[in-house]
Amino acid sequence: MSTTTSASRRAFLAATAASAAHVWIPRPVKGYTTAEILAPVKPMATGISKWDLDTPALCVDLDKLEQNIARMQRSLVANKLGSRPHAKTHKCAAIARLQMAAGALGICAAKLSEAEALAAEGLDRICLTTGNLSASKIRRAMQLRKRTPQFIQAVDYEPNAHDLNAAAKEAGIVADVVIDIAVGTRSGIPAGADALALAKLVDRLPNLKLRGVLSYDGGAQHITGFATRKERALTNIADNARTVEAMKRDGLNTEIFSGGGTGTYSIQHLVPGFTDVQVGSYVFMDMQYLAIGGEDGNPVYSDFASSLTVLGTIVNNRFPGRLTTDAGAKAFTLNVPRPGVIGEPGMDYNPGSDEFGTITFKQASRSYKMGDRLEMTVPHCDPVVNLYDYIYGIRQDRVEVVWPITARGHSQ
Amino acid sequence: MSTTTSASRRAFLAATAASAAHVWIPRPVKGYTTAEILAPVKPMATGISKWDLDTPALCVDLDKLEQNIARMQRSLVANKLGSRPHAKTHKCAAIARLQMAAGALGICAAKLSEAEALAAEGLDRICLTTGNLSASKIRRAMQLRKRTPQFIQAVDYEPNAHDLNAAAKEAGIVADVVIDIAVGTRSGIPAGADALALAKLVDRLPNLKLRGVLSYDGGAQHITGFATRKERALTNIADNARTVEAMKRDGLNTEIFSGGGTGTYSIQHLVPGFTDVQVGSYVFMDMQYLAIGGEDGNPVYSDFASSLTVLGTIVNNRFPGRLTTDAGAKAFTLNVPRPGVIGEPGMDYNPGSDEFGTITFKQASRSYKMGDRLEMTVPHCDPVVNLYDYIYGIRQDRVEVVWPITARGHSQ
Repeated sequence: MSTTTSASRRAFLAATAASAAHVWIPRPVKGYTTAEILAPVKPMATGISKWDLDTPALCVDLDKLEQNIARMQRSLVANKLGSRPHAKTHKCAAIARLQMAAGALGICAAKLSEAEALAAEGLDRICLTTGNLSASKIRRAMQLRKRTPQFIQAVDYEPNAHDLNAAAKEAGIVADVVIDIAVGTRSGIPAGADALALAKLVDRLPNLKLRGVLSYDGGAQHITGFATRKERALTNIADNARTVEAMKRDGLNTEIFSGGGTGTYSIQHLVPGFTDVQVGSYVFMDMQYLAIGGEDGNPVYSDFASSLTVLGTIVNNRFPGRLTTDAGAKAFTLNVPRPGVIGEPGMDYNPGSDEFGTITFKQASRSYKMGDRLEMTVPHCDPVVNLYDYIYGIRQDRVEVVWPITARGHSQ
Repeated sequence: MSTTTSASRRAFLAATAASAAHVWIPRPVKGYTTAEILAPVKPMATGISKWDLDTPALCVDLDKLEQNIARMQRSLVANKLGSRPHAKTHKCAAIARLQMAAGALGICAAKLSEAEALAAEGLDRICLTTGNLSASKIRRAMQLRKRTPQFIQAVDYEPNAHDLNAAAKEAGIVADVVIDIAVGTRSGIPAGADALALAKLVDRLPNLKLRGVLSYDGGAQHITGFATRKERALTNIADNARTVEAMKRDGLNTEIFSGGGTGTYSIQHLVPGFTDVQVGSYVFMDMQYLAIGGEDGNPVYSDFASSLTVLGTIVNNRFPGRLTTDAGAKAFTLNVPRPGVIGEPGMDYNPGSDEFGTITFKQASRSYKMGDRLEMTVPHCDPVVNLYDYIYGIRQDRVEVVWPITARGHSQ
């Protein structure tokens, strides 16, 4: 091992240098280096038919993906809003680049390690939508800001603003900050006096620069029925909009008032002062979003095309009305609605077993042999993408490109 | 990039060489190489308190892990059985080594890429419990066998045996094979005449060597109540045991008759001809297994200690009876029973949000501040471990070791 000079190995050792003697570092075996042992699953080559991919394989239809990105950008611009797509959905630098190329103001990240991974890929306009509460993460966030000057950090707690200011000072920077104002009870500071006081504090602290406000309404995105969704989304955010108005009156910077998502993208322009939408799932459209219903009254939300699928292989066809595939909970998660088998509306797909999917059916369009492939839609895109090292970009059934899921597993 | 000489980069390029021009390879940015961009989350150092780990963090209590491994080995040996632990549970070469050091006959892997990753770490006695049905995977499995002479491949389908024989011949080897005989409808060839015919075929094919039989009863493992579990496990496998007897009478090799798991480990010795148990979850003991009940009539299955936890951080404490953590579905999956908060039996933990956990409670042992840590038990160990790049080995609350999850994401 002492003869290896790989930069990756050095980085790995540096990361654990504090107590290298106690860290279990895999010994090189049969010519593999540590970095290769830790490396992700090797992808298959481009140019082949998607039906020749080894499975389970995560695929995105490139035509649909590109159409979704273009359509969202057009729609938001028509409503005089910007887009700040949330990368927690795809965790993929290549897709973030497509979004930026289409005109996004920047991207969002949910966790610090996700932001770090995307920044390491050269993405520079990243807004971290969650506060960091440990000393270690606060310091890392400010180091990230130092390397990536357009990085923006969310804050929702006064002591945290002080800690962030101290870390920014230590890093020798003035860090851009947005106040995360709550919609609901999950995260964020409540709208009104508390939020206004936090905004003033951030504005006052010398090593922080107030850029505005985040207000993500996670609960509204999946409300079924457009009219109800619209009414609830606008009601939920009314106090936040009033707080932003109050900030404006007090001369505080509100150049960013960001929130919303795929379920409310066509509603957010009705919020006074709103600037940009943190759309995520629209690139893929999963079973959950398809079920929320569209503005046209259609029970299927069809503003964007379903582009994300998982390919599986049949490993048991011996019993009538049953099939087993190699794509279970480790390929799909357990979100509902369950995966849909494309072209087989009569099939029920249960991914409840870790390694296997179980299909039951009364009618199928054809008979299936051992080794045959099936293609499934995805229940909920974010956690499914997080299971894979690569996504295969498909055009007309051929693998055109293989994209690493840059921030796969980066949930810290 | 052209000046980089890292072995990892060469391996990555080689893997995609067939059409490198079309593969999207991340360009190096700010000194990062491709291999580093694809590298996993960097772990924190050993020696620190587990309460200083950035979260979500996957932890295993080393005392309990070691006790579990020793106790299982003792118990199986007392019943004149071997252990062949299933690595699909931990996907971790370091834990597999502990199992081997304790006296395991070998380990099992559920998928080819999982077996490849563990073999690359030097584990050589691997039984792949699932058949490979694509030409690409069959070829890879036989290459793995060539590098790892003690590798054993499961087969449950006659045409697949022919394909495997051809690939073994092409690789210049005689490959060890076990017949996977079904318990239930999920996978495997039905017991009786079909299985016997497949065993005879494998025995006859010149480049395959029959080693025996697998019969894993996934359905029996989680049956609540020991007496019912025992009765069902023994009933379910009776036809398989008769098939093994018939194989013996026909002079076929039955040196391996392997199956069972953590729920039936103390029952399997009652199956005639049985040789070893594919125990998995006993190393960690998750909420699902704790709930199945023990032989002593205790509703908690306490044969092994619960060693696996996830640490989370409180990111919202503003509402009475509610807390939000940073550990949601991307940290826990959606399996039930839900995570348990250690030391807080009155808390209900809902990991249903991708990035956040929501705790509701009427009573808590103390008040919690922003940034405080909580430690949770895990609903179902296998898919949770699969979400993390590293597991922190904890002894008396200190991080003693950091182990890579060697085959994390290797579901192909």
